[in-house]
Amino acid sequence: VWENLDLAGAKDKGKAEDVSLAPFPYVRFTDAWKGVPRGTIALADTVVPGYPRIGRILALQSGLHERFEGGFWTEEKVDGYNVRICRLHGHALAITRGGFVCPFTTDRLPDLIDLTLLDDEPDLVLCAEVAGPDNPYNESCPPFVTEDVRLFVFDMMRLGQGGFLPPQAVYERIERFALPSVQRFGRYTVADVGRIRALLRKLNAEHREGLVFKDDPKGARRTKYVTSNANVSDIRSTAENILELPPNYFTNRILRLALGLQEQGLERSRELEQRLGAAFLEGLLEALDQYNTEQRVYHSYRCRFRQRQSALDFLTFLQALGGNRAKIEQRDLRQESGYWVLEYLRGYPALNGLLGSVLRGGVLYD
Amino acid sequence: VWENLDLAGAKDKGKAEDVSLAPFPYVRFTDAWKGVPRGTIALADTVVPGYPRIGRILALQSGLHERFEGGFWTEEKVDGYNVRICRLHGHALAITRGGFVCPFTTDRLPDLIDLTLLDDEPDLVLCAEVAGPDNPYNESCPPFVTEDVRLFVFDMMRLGQGGFLPPQAVYERIERFALPSVQRFGRYTVADVGRIRALLRKLNAEHREGLVFKDDPKGARRTKYVTSNANVSDIRSTAENILELPPNYFTNRILRLALGLQEQGLERSRELEQRLGAAFLEGLLEALDQYNTEQRVYHSYRCRFRQRQSALDFLTFLQALGGNRAKIEQRDLRQESGYWVLEYLRGYPALNGLLGSVLRGGVLYD
Repeated sequence: VWENLDLAGAKDKGKAEDVSLAPFPYVRFTDAWKGVPRGTIALADTVVPGYPRIGRILALQSGLHERFEGGFWTEEKVDGYNVRICRLHGHALAITRGGFVCPFTTDRLPDLIDLTLLDDEPDLVLCAEVAGPDNPYNESCPPFVTEDVRLFVFDMMRLGQGGFLPPQAVYERIERFALPSVQRFGRYTVADVGRIRALLRKLNAEHREGLVFKDDPKGARRTKYVTSNANVSDIRSTAENILELPPNYFTNRILRLALGLQEQGLERSRELEQRLGAAFLEGLLEALDQYNTEQRVYHSYRCRFRQRQSALDFLTFLQALGGNRAKIEQRDLRQESGYWVLEYLRGYPALNGLLGSVLRGGVLYD
Repeated sequence: VWENLDLAGAKDKGKAEDVSLAPFPYVRFTDAWKGVPRGTIALADTVVPGYPRIGRILALQSGLHERFEGGFWTEEKVDGYNVRICRLHGHALAITRGGFVCPFTTDRLPDLIDLTLLDDEPDLVLCAEVAGPDNPYNESCPPFVTEDVRLFVFDMMRLGQGGFLPPQAVYERIERFALPSVQRFGRYTVADVGRIRALLRKLNAEHREGLVFKDDPKGARRTKYVTSNANVSDIRSTAENILELPPNYFTNRILRLALGLQEQGLERSRELEQRLGAAFLEGLLEALDQYNTEQRVYHSYRCRFRQRQSALDFLTFLQALGGNRAKIEQRDLRQESGYWVLEYLRGYPALNGLLGSVLRGGVLYD
């Protein structure tokens, strides 16, 4: 698959496109195609494989049993955005899940991770989650990142190759180079499902997102399981996005929540019901308040850059990414404590359109 | 529009189809087409106009202001299913919104309404809502119908003609023939919005669905407004349908709920939040319990017929209507207190499929 990528064929079929935003041009796979994951990027001399989708289980015991014959490594799933980090043509770059070089994450790499490891193994691709209140993509963040952003390595791949390094090979490099990484909980088997449930209850109580499981020794088979609170918190943080997200974004999470309660042998409680209802209503009523005061609904983002030019590149990137629907508006770009602090807004065009119409007395046929 | 309906053209475009289930064959409009509403049915010698969609307002004051210049008649909106009742070829028939002769409602017409009015005016079409716990379509029903079903007239049309009779002409006939009808609250103007809000608060407290407004004198312009509790109750009664209904069924109702709270100047309360969360979780956890006990999720229906043959026709009708997705299963058909009582189940194929897969340990890529 990787040696003779049929770029012309993929572009012909609309599965790949040229990208010119980065320090050099490359081809990005916009969809999965013939075994090549979406987000794969191809240069003249190498390929950064896309990060493949990980299937979700909704029933822990039977899901682990179906998926794993022997042991599996268990790691925390962090609520952030996925990047692949590698050196290309001498540039250390952070590439998003979709296959774009991210001007924000790339700019901040020196703050987030020591890449000495890449001197030894220049063909390594580090897969990491970036999370925190000052991130430009997610509207929520994990409770243990209280300012700016942090980076958590959880996988390694090699340029021009598919598949992941085995978990223990990743762990060994994380230790040796003191890389920031996701929490690792060690090796379990299906017989340990009671301990895994207890671990999930603890993560749930701490409002953490969930677990990823990878087979021992290869790490090629993997699956994920998300906590109840992560489902509620996803709804809370995206309620004002109710008209932009595919509506089954919400119904899927409610269904997962019900299955999670059953899985964990929990009764539904009035407290959980109230939090689920509040997740929708709080977010929407805040959006309505904002609309009444400012005649539009938007979300404010703030993020810090080392270089002023990176902040400008990032705005260009966001606008290019979102097309007409992006509604990105710069608010401020100032120097502060050695960083360039960018503040910008992202509007919600569908919700703004609907509110504009119905609050002026428009009718809906639905 | 009505005199020279282009049935061949409509059928050609897939907007109309032949129906052979009724006492006589007819053509049904499966979609709105060139001013003909969906659900219109055409016989050789006449046409039963479809019941047009009524636009919903989400902001009471501005919505009424936009819609009505002078007075408007205000009626209760009842949570049931819409039928048009008329005499065709000597048969008194009840026709569903979609344009099918309903074997259940048609069978029960003598119990539900005295059609003497049609002796005087044989071209009248009575538009009514049928509601109650023993109805075969809706999974919820209004609190004031505690057994079987009842019928509530709210509009009148004429065979072969578009448009409605003016509200006062309808009210006069309802009085004269003592027809069962929806509650009428009289004539208001936009200046009365405070009184209308108070009325809606009362309807909401009584768990009634909402109001329909029709311009005075013609009744041609109309709109509707639904209570907060109706939104929650819709979600509660259809939660197990979460994978079959379009997912924006749910997000629309949540958005209406938030707008309704703002409209009515209500704060969101923990009690309402809890009821919204419970609406989803109760229904889904009941479905999961049912799946664990019986290996499938279904809803039980019971309805009474005067004639045994009507019950059999009704089952044939439901199966024809639902195609392969219907999963209708007869449970019982017995004589009881002078009626034939039909009990049947309707399965939820999408939810059953998903639960079958994930509870056996399947993974989802979502």
